[in-house]
Amino acid sequence: MDEMTDRALEFARERQRQALGELIQWLEIPSISAQPSHVSDVRHAAEWLAAHMRGIGLANVTVRPTAGHPIVYGDWLGAPGKPTLLIYGHYDVQPIDPMNLWSSDPFEPLERAGNLYGRGAADDKGQVFANLKAVEAYLKTCGALPVNVKFIVEGEEEVGSVHLTSFVEANAPLLAADAVLVSDSAWLTLDAPTLIYGLRGLVYLEMEVIGPSQDLHSGSFGGPVQNPIQALCDIVAHLKDDQGRINIPGFYNKVQPLDDEERRELGRIPFDAALFCKDAGITTTAGEAGYSIIEQLGARPTLDINGIVGGYTGPGAKTVIPSRVTAKISMRLVPDQDPDEIADLFIAEVQRVAPPTVQVNVRRLHAAAPAIMNRQAPPLRAAARALQLAFGHEPVFARDGGSIPIMSHFQRCLNAPAVLMGYGLPDDNIHAPNEKFALAQFFGGIRACIYFLGALGE
Amino acid sequence: MDEMTDRALEFARERQRQALGELIQWLEIPSISAQPSHVSDVRHAAEWLAAHMRGIGLANVTVRPTAGHPIVYGDWLGAPGKPTLLIYGHYDVQPIDPMNLWSSDPFEPLERAGNLYGRGAADDKGQVFANLKAVEAYLKTCGALPVNVKFIVEGEEEVGSVHLTSFVEANAPLLAADAVLVSDSAWLTLDAPTLIYGLRGLVYLEMEVIGPSQDLHSGSFGGPVQNPIQALCDIVAHLKDDQGRINIPGFYNKVQPLDDEERRELGRIPFDAALFCKDAGITTTAGEAGYSIIEQLGARPTLDINGIVGGYTGPGAKTVIPSRVTAKISMRLVPDQDPDEIADLFIAEVQRVAPPTVQVNVRRLHAAAPAIMNRQAPPLRAAARALQLAFGHEPVFARDGGSIPIMSHFQRCLNAPAVLMGYGLPDDNIHAPNEKFALAQFFGGIRACIYFLGALGE
Repeated sequence: MDEMTDRALEFARERQRQALGELIQWLEIPSISAQPSHVSDVRHAAEWLAAHMRGIGLANVTVRPTAGHPIVYGDWLGAPGKPTLLIYGHYDVQPIDPMNLWSSDPFEPLERAGNLYGRGAADDKGQVFANLKAVEAYLKTCGALPVNVKFIVEGEEEVGSVHLTSFVEANAPLLAADAVLVSDSAWLTLDAPTLIYGLRGLVYLEMEVIGPSQDLHSGSFGGPVQNPIQALCDIVAHLKDDQGRINIPGFYNKVQPLDDEERRELGRIPFDAALFCKDAGITTTAGEAGYSIIEQLGARPTLDINGIVGGYTGPGAKTVIPSRVTAKISMRLVPDQDPDEIADLFIAEVQRVAPPTVQVNVRRLHAAAPAIMNRQAPPLRAAARALQLAFGHEPVFARDGGSIPIMSHFQRCLNAPAVLMGYGLPDDNIHAPNEKFALAQFFGGIRACIYFLGALGE
Repeated sequence: MDEMTDRALEFARERQRQALGELIQWLEIPSISAQPSHVSDVRHAAEWLAAHMRGIGLANVTVRPTAGHPIVYGDWLGAPGKPTLLIYGHYDVQPIDPMNLWSSDPFEPLERAGNLYGRGAADDKGQVFANLKAVEAYLKTCGALPVNVKFIVEGEEEVGSVHLTSFVEANAPLLAADAVLVSDSAWLTLDAPTLIYGLRGLVYLEMEVIGPSQDLHSGSFGGPVQNPIQALCDIVAHLKDDQGRINIPGFYNKVQPLDDEERRELGRIPFDAALFCKDAGITTTAGEAGYSIIEQLGARPTLDINGIVGGYTGPGAKTVIPSRVTAKISMRLVPDQDPDEIADLFIAEVQRVAPPTVQVNVRRLHAAAPAIMNRQAPPLRAAARALQLAFGHEPVFARDGGSIPIMSHFQRCLNAPAVLMGYGLPDDNIHAPNEKFALAQFFGGIRACIYFLGALGE
């Protein structure tokens, strides 16, 4: 197997610039899954990927329709008796606003100072593509892989993987695997290759507060009429206490407390608080009293207002009492919180504290369960070795603050350990303007996946 | 003088439909002063008005440039020895959003069921036009008016009359008058012609709360990073207590308390709380404990959030911690609150309670002092008689919740009593979709102004 791996590594090294050029083509397709105006772009990105998969030698490549955006599948099953690895990723990307803060066009990828800038560069097209290039390197040099491989790449990760769940349920035999590889995460620091063993879940809600049936003149009506924006602010203010804790009865009931051993382990992670602040663009942290930044990010739930709009927001002044205001509110969850139950608790508390002068409607936009993996499972140890060899640094095991909605579902449906081996860096600006992917991480990611496939096949 | 008035009344009655057609032409010009894209429309509305003034026989008609939108002036000074009346109004209109709630195009005025629908119909083009038609009726029938008249019609009332103040100061001799007439207000009920003797002032601010220097992924950063929308909601929630009182130290220090006599007088005003709720489109009132609706609207200050926007507000979900959020916040003031001082108090309190994890910037958009008039001044009594004759109902004296920024300035600069004789109704939807002006109020307003001019000249 070592010889195969060496040949694949050499191929990958020689073809780095070509791989980069191909990735740029894929990034040029604005596959924003949240916006209806981009439906055909999302489909285009799926078809581009399928064509590329066929080109590198994968079999059974299909663009599978769903009630939403399609799922791309492809496999290579020419290693009977060897383990089967399911590689998951997503080809959809986040919206780009605020557009005016981008230094270059999000869909005209630009290489600058060792980074590739563009929407989706790190989240997740660039990471998916590294794994594809690793597979290509084996197939183009040896005509075979050390293990069987199946790719499943979806187009709805950024909107909650709404149709992947039922797809996985309906296609469990097709997707059957001994391990799942997901490359959709970032390292904690530049020299700490990071294996994620815990992911937060998510509940994403939209809350509308309705006051008067129409916009009113604030002079003629101001005073006796409840302002719905004021009511919304009062509700939101109530949802957090002055210790940064979420003030919803029952919210913390099922949170697994951190034990001393895990707190010690998390405490050993090389984490640079100053760098965290720099990457976040903040001068000082806020958050929940009694927990370190690492603990808050990985092992504690949150509540964030993701967006708000209501009333007059144009230039100048309009003296109006608006009829309504809408906020998007999400909560990151940790084991063993249940997303549906947390949504119920949220809605009950909001309705309890809303004044009788407004109507409050809460819509559930999406939900994902939190997940936690066994750090000692063989695929996780194989990934640790692969990262060490590819990047020359000892990897760390960490919990991640993000959510990969489908992870807990994969674990449940396929009964296979998941390996979260990402190639991103903390300053990649994912979900924000000027998203980038470091070229060294892209090329290193290809090497890491080559080593990982080799190690799994031993 | 009676014969002149009779001839003017007859002329006005015969020409009602023609007057309506002319008003519709003026309303078709979208003179939205707040929006830069409408600058030329605002100018067009001024020029239309000037041409119309010349057509009805006014002299010295000029469109006077300012650093913003122009001011239209015209006069008739052919009654030496008689008093001079300055008639003020505005030809600019409010923005139209939310456009989807209009039943007909805001700038294609539509007559339906005794009302004329269109932006500016009641606020203030229709009311200004009633006064113009009264002057025309005298000039076209008698070639003279019972008094000297000067018109000053501005294009920036809806954005705080920013340049009128200095114009009035610089042109005090031109505008010198014995009384000022303003028709830019609504009656309290359908059968209570209303003379306003008190107006609330206004401070309009824009508050921006800045958290991280860029939008962040709520999974990778959620928890330790202060969410600026949460911070803004916390601040806004702090600004009002659970009794509906404004929680800014010193805010009420200069508020004139209502004495028992005025509370009794205000209590006699025919006010229909159920109708108020129906007009407002609410099921129940909120507001300041211990004060009636009428008292709150006229004699108590308010704080309203007029608009708010931040983060992701498009379709679907985006898991972002936004970098910033902006709210437009205004306070209606009562005598003797000073707008600049109140803005200072607001800013000091907001900065005091803002967490150290965000930056708060407050911009002053505009300000107007509150005003109060002597109910016994002769022009106010003349107006009361005119309303009685024109509409057949006993008028009431009331305080109004709105602001006419220039009123206190007129009083101060010109030293002339102001008469606030409006022709609007409480359900006119000013500053909201489906603004309308009742035809009976338009035609009655013409008659009222004819009687008022006659009474002033006696």
